[in-house]
Amino acid sequence: MAAQPARPAKQRKQDALHRLEHDADVWVATAPDDGSGVPYLVPLSFVWDGSTVLLATPANSPTGRNLKATGRVRLGLGPTRDVVMIEGTVDTVTQAELTEEEGDGFATRTGFDPRRLTTPYLYFRVRPQRVQAWREENELTGRELMRDGEWLPAD
Amino acid sequence: MAAQPARPAKQRKQDALHRLEHDADVWVATAPDDGSGVPYLVPLSFVWDGSTVLLATPANSPTGRNLKATGRVRLGLGPTRDVVMIEGTVDTVTQAELTEEEGDGFATRTGFDPRRLTTPYLYFRVRPQRVQAWREENELTGRELMRDGEWLPAD
Repeated sequence: MAAQPARPAKQRKQDALHRLEHDADVWVATAPDDGSGVPYLVPLSFVWDGSTVLLATPANSPTGRNLKATGRVRLGLGPTRDVVMIEGTVDTVTQAELTEEEGDGFATRTGFDPRRLTTPYLYFRVRPQRVQAWREENELTGRELMRDGEWLPAD
Repeated sequence: MAAQPARPAKQRKQDALHRLEHDADVWVATAPDDGSGVPYLVPLSFVWDGSTVLLATPANSPTGRNLKATGRVRLGLGPTRDVVMIEGTVDTVTQAELTEEEGDGFATRTGFDPRRLTTPYLYFRVRPQRVQAWREENELTGRELMRDGEWLPAD
């Protein structure tokens, strides 16, 4: 079934970092903490700074409310047969807390600047705790690339 | 910013149905009902029968446990700039409850047959309650295609 041989861990890490540096959007899954078990999912633009993922979304959107309440997220990068999955903890960053440089960087990279909109936006900084990457079934073994915030493959 | 003019509702519905009939995988977001607010997200193969989405995943996977416990899911189809978002209710279907025809159809369509695996799998039937579709920002208005299980655009 697999079109290609399974990549070694080091290659998967390089490919994951390439997506973090170059992809425009990420799937963002969140959940409320009310025990309802109703998930939310939406694609958002993002910026990777080398160690964290910066997102922005309206403060009153389901994603914004869930991230602020729970501080937990699961991200999906790439097409469904070449994914990077990221579990992360999330810090809420108000526009006042964001540096001008970061705000400008976000606007340049994503093409939209939440600081200029009338709808109140919040930024969210995702710190990856667990990263997995796989393409097809033959890559499910060895998909773990980061655990407890530490990359497993050596550089 | 938008590359194309916004599609009318009827076109969006046709495009959404085309994806349901032809796409191989869907992003599946779920959440536990324990109030932890920790979301789960994974791509899975699926089959659309004209009114429901059939999924299969190991009974003991996070997605399997969440779907069984909550009966709620949010699905994302398509690339991030041409999405179909589906909120649905979920019925758990054991292998014994699945008809042979459905099981065979699932195996043919997805290329894998959970009935032949030693890992215990469950099937899940997703009944869409709300469907949205958009490409870029100019399509956020008018993205609602189904509400309370009823398609809004006329055929």
